[in-house]
Amino acid sequence: MALHPPRRRTLIAAVAGAVALVGSLGFGALPALAADPSDDATGDITTHGGATRNNGDMTQALRDSIVGGPAKNVILLIGDGMGDSEITVARNYAEGAAGRFAGIDALPLTGQYTTFSLNEDGTPDYASESASTASAWSTGTKTVDGRLSVDVNKKPQATLLEIAKANGLKTGDVSTAESQDATPGAQISHISKRGCYGPDKTSTDCASEALENGGLGSISEQLLNVRPDVVLGGGSASFTQKAKAGPWNNKTLFEQASARGYQLVSDAAGLNAVTRADADAPVLGLFTPGNFPTRWVGPAPVDLTAGGSLPAAAACTDNPARLASGLSLASLTDKAISLLDGDRGFFLQVEGASIDKRDHAADACGQIGETVDLDEAVQGALDFAKADGNTLVVVTADHAHTSQIVGEAIPGLNTHLLTSEGKEMIVAYGTSPAGGSQQHTGSQVRIAGYGPGAANVVGLTDQTDLFFTASSGWNRDLAALSQGATGSAPASVQPGAAFDVTVSGLAADWQATAVLASDPVDLGQTDVRAGVATYRVTAPTEPGDHTLTVTGAQTGTRVVVAFRVDAAAPVDPSPSPSASASAGAVAGSASGNGGDPLALTGGTVPTTLAALALVLVAVGGYLVLRRRHLHTIGS
Amino acid sequence: MALHPPRRRTLIAAVAGAVALVGSLGFGALPALAADPSDDATGDITTHGGATRNNGDMTQALRDSIVGGPAKNVILLIGDGMGDSEITVARNYAEGAAGRFAGIDALPLTGQYTTFSLNEDGTPDYASESASTASAWSTGTKTVDGRLSVDVNKKPQATLLEIAKANGLKTGDVSTAESQDATPGAQISHISKRGCYGPDKTSTDCASEALENGGLGSISEQLLNVRPDVVLGGGSASFTQKAKAGPWNNKTLFEQASARGYQLVSDAAGLNAVTRADADAPVLGLFTPGNFPTRWVGPAPVDLTAGGSLPAAAACTDNPARLASGLSLASLTDKAISLLDGDRGFFLQVEGASIDKRDHAADACGQIGETVDLDEAVQGALDFAKADGNTLVVVTADHAHTSQIVGEAIPGLNTHLLTSEGKEMIVAYGTSPAGGSQQHTGSQVRIAGYGPGAANVVGLTDQTDLFFTASSGWNRDLAALSQGATGSAPASVQPGAAFDVTVSGLAADWQATAVLASDPVDLGQTDVRAGVATYRVTAPTEPGDHTLTVTGAQTGTRVVVAFRVDAAAPVDPSPSPSASASAGAVAGSASGNGGDPLALTGGTVPTTLAALALVLVAVGGYLVLRRRHLHTIGS
Repeated sequence: MALHPPRRRTLIAAVAGAVALVGSLGFGALPALAADPSDDATGDITTHGGATRNNGDMTQALRDSIVGGPAKNVILLIGDGMGDSEITVARNYAEGAAGRFAGIDALPLTGQYTTFSLNEDGTPDYASESASTASAWSTGTKTVDGRLSVDVNKKPQATLLEIAKANGLKTGDVSTAESQDATPGAQISHISKRGCYGPDKTSTDCASEALENGGLGSISEQLLNVRPDVVLGGGSASFTQKAKAGPWNNKTLFEQASARGYQLVSDAAGLNAVTRADADAPVLGLFTPGNFPTRWVGPAPVDLTAGGSLPAAAACTDNPARLASGLSLASLTDKAISLLDGDRGFFLQVEGASIDKRDHAADACGQIGETVDLDEAVQGALDFAKADGNTLVVVTADHAHTSQIVGEAIPGLNTHLLTSEGKEMIVAYGTSPAGGSQQHTGSQVRIAGYGPGAANVVGLTDQTDLFFTASSGWNRDLAALSQGATGSAPASVQPGAAFDVTVSGLAADWQATAVLASDPVDLGQTDVRAGVATYRVTAPTEPGDHTLTVTGAQTGTRVVVAFRVDAAAPVDPSPSPSASASAGAVAGSASGNGGDPLALTGGTVPTTLAALALVLVAVGGYLVLRRRHLHTIGS
Repeated sequence: MALHPPRRRTLIAAVAGAVALVGSLGFGALPALAADPSDDATGDITTHGGATRNNGDMTQALRDSIVGGPAKNVILLIGDGMGDSEITVARNYAEGAAGRFAGIDALPLTGQYTTFSLNEDGTPDYASESASTASAWSTGTKTVDGRLSVDVNKKPQATLLEIAKANGLKTGDVSTAESQDATPGAQISHISKRGCYGPDKTSTDCASEALENGGLGSISEQLLNVRPDVVLGGGSASFTQKAKAGPWNNKTLFEQASARGYQLVSDAAGLNAVTRADADAPVLGLFTPGNFPTRWVGPAPVDLTAGGSLPAAAACTDNPARLASGLSLASLTDKAISLLDGDRGFFLQVEGASIDKRDHAADACGQIGETVDLDEAVQGALDFAKADGNTLVVVTADHAHTSQIVGEAIPGLNTHLLTSEGKEMIVAYGTSPAGGSQQHTGSQVRIAGYGPGAANVVGLTDQTDLFFTASSGWNRDLAALSQGATGSAPASVQPGAAFDVTVSGLAADWQATAVLASDPVDLGQTDVRAGVATYRVTAPTEPGDHTLTVTGAQTGTRVVVAFRVDAAAPVDPSPSPSASASAGAVAGSASGNGGDPLALTGGTVPTTLAALALVLVAVGGYLVLRRRHLHTIGS
């Protein structure tokens, strides 16, 4: 496998079908992709003009690539640690120095962005890592290294995935890493330490944030609460741990996920069988206990700190441990797109995670293969976007990394590669001693875009700009999105009868709690699905006016649904709530909430709630609604 | 000098005046610069949105920045070795991580380009250097490391500066390095070894290219032949060497320059006194024997290969050896623009050379100060371009380099800096041992543009694309540009009378030779100034029809000017050539030349030319016109 032929992938049939149905949506001109220099017949890099990449003057092509946003769909593809050096290393190896990635290099609008994070005192930290950087584009707020989507004061910040969901878009989170890892984790959790994947580690390392201590819980548990339509990646190990509090106390997270309606898949066949993904049946595909194996393996780096010479150049080889072809990053991306695409629009984040991880390990072939993998995923995203005409695709990195292309071996780690075009390339790693973890670097990195709104990646931007670029079409005021929620119940029910109360429009809430009054009865937590919380209520035996107060867990939006228990009518065991008129549903904020969004947390609050009156914030059996700062735009 | 206040420079009055005169030239919309985030009041990087750089949606701003070419004026500013890491190092230090260079970061159109060079066998060399890379954008042709504007077969390739000149533009070449160094040298010379600055080194290291061996001569001698309107930089040492052949044999290059009409300046006062620069009086300002001293100095790097800890962070300080303020790169750039600006348009290359040189030396403060210097030069160029409305400004690097921003010291060289915002930054150099020269790296680098035609820098391009971007408005067929040359002489002259023969339109020739016939008399070499070669001829004593054949040295264009010597008329010692009708001037190619451009070379050809007939290529006393391959577009 010394030579890798051009990997111009063909559009997967399923995606092509979906694309054909969606087609152009009349949003003006179809954005143009970057010119493909393969149209240029020259090709001989020794001749005058033979190494150029432009096809003549590109002014009109650039104009044609600029289409105003917002886009219906947004796909972010992140190469973790994929600085310009890593892109060039991979291109040189896989496509040749004059070659071109059919995905990564095809995006027509390009710029650079800064990736610094914050020190605890709020000053810039010049060398950041994946949690702070993923938080930056996920929330528009810079934070301290190691934190996920909380600010410098550890206040949770709403993420792109959450805001997309609250705006009615379908959502997906795909990675070759553990699904709790920094990049995928930043979209679906808010926690002060990126390592708190499951309940066990959270109890010890993030104790105040553990479910049993009234916190939001581990990253995995938060993932289950956020309930994206599609999550695909590794990280199943954490889901075998048991919750330490809450409705699923002592159940594994897998059992919890099943109980909450998730479609759990763990292999290519299982994923292939999935045909829908939505709030009622979200897809959680966890294909490895930890991170995915890499695509390629290759020669170990040679430490020449004390002198010595390079070994002969060698090529990368396929990693026999690589997952089945249906589980490549490109396959997962295509599948996610096919499950998400529809009238509502979607937000999808895709991470090629191990560019970074193999760069840390000074593993050139590992790093290169993952870049190639990401490129194929980008190709899939671009194929979809090009046909769809209303999809923004952004490709970028979270931070730069160590690997450098040099002409002579360095006094450190060196890998001597024989590239696909048969030339020798030295990839050097010099930021840590042999055996150590090579470091991230603080350089600005490339950001590239295609589609409506992609103009916002051009020039010098910051990582936090990407948040606004991606969410430009969305209402970022989450509290406002749930504000119009309404409830319905039968106008009157028989004492002791069972009936449904439905609250709709809790767009920015993922869970709700409910309290029956006047004698307070806690009805516990339920998942809000597409803004809808439904409670089956057993009518009190005392005749008269009663209420059910349903409170959105994330925004604190409170809906009070009134109903009357009749004194003497015969019991009707089959209520017809949907036929009933709305029983004076009132949407309002919980007292003291002031419209600020709230976070769902677990807690050890006792279930005896007699002391709580209706005017207090509703408290579920294992829920405490606490003030949570979700910064909103324009508020 | 721990803190460097924002260096928003003010436009130098002289340039502003020139700008006001030129103004907008009706080429459509004035291109927009990138938004200045200083307009954004937020500024608190710890807040949501506080670190963003865009000012809202940038779609229309990007559209407004795209103006079709060609531009009237082209300014290329090169940061030697200024990869994205070097830009970020300098920005962090001088402007803060969330800061912005008022020049470098203000260009609205951005992309990445590849910088690989060639091996001798024509395959890609992944880690290039400044000669091959400068040749790439100067000529559109990749070459082997160390060569200047010759291709893989060592054939000379026409440069942007040469083509601009041939198209009637004024030309300038400014650098903080020696004017013969790779980047400035690539625009004005064609040679196989970049080190052959003067006649001495050329005789030993580039023997076949030495003037005395029939070659084009040293870089300095080629510079004098190309005769740009403005050359400013270092490198005076080579001009104290003596030519070893040619019309100025045994004269120093300074003496030669004076004899050929150059305005020689060596200090700020001298430069300040210069008020014109053109073909008759080009400006050659050489202010140091070698390279310029840097702007800043700072702590030496600490070698932690064997362990140890970082010293306390320290700030950069002003270099007391820095040249006078009138000789900063920004000052030289402004002066060059003011001398070049006019109706004809101009091409100007400006190099910040020592970003690279100090990166080689692991000198973080040196490297940073030079980047700051370049930024100020870019500000000047943008100020001019913005007011002018018809100037393309491109800012890029030749290749990436070693320096990396890391969070922990590396097992190599480290400099611990205290930045202008009071934070510690580690700049690491790990590609060579202490005392060695840190290496270039092979990463793609940033390219940014402003003005007509700048769209061509967006996306992924190659360094050779820049040649076509910059020259898009020019006729690159040099032979064709001289093809319409015409000559004039008095229709008849008295035997033995002195008269002038003028050949005009030798647009792509820098020198000419002439032979009087029918008894061949070599009239030697003359500089072609703005396409005009003038010979003072003494009429033959034999009455009858005679010719003077003038041959352009670069293109081989031959103009035969006929005149008649009268037999009996009285001698008139004051001829009036300009009043005379054109004496049947004929423009044509020399036989065997086929329209291919020729190069001027020196030679040891004997001065006895009796054997040569008129139909042969004209040969001057110290000139041999030899076939030279200048690749032309569309031919």
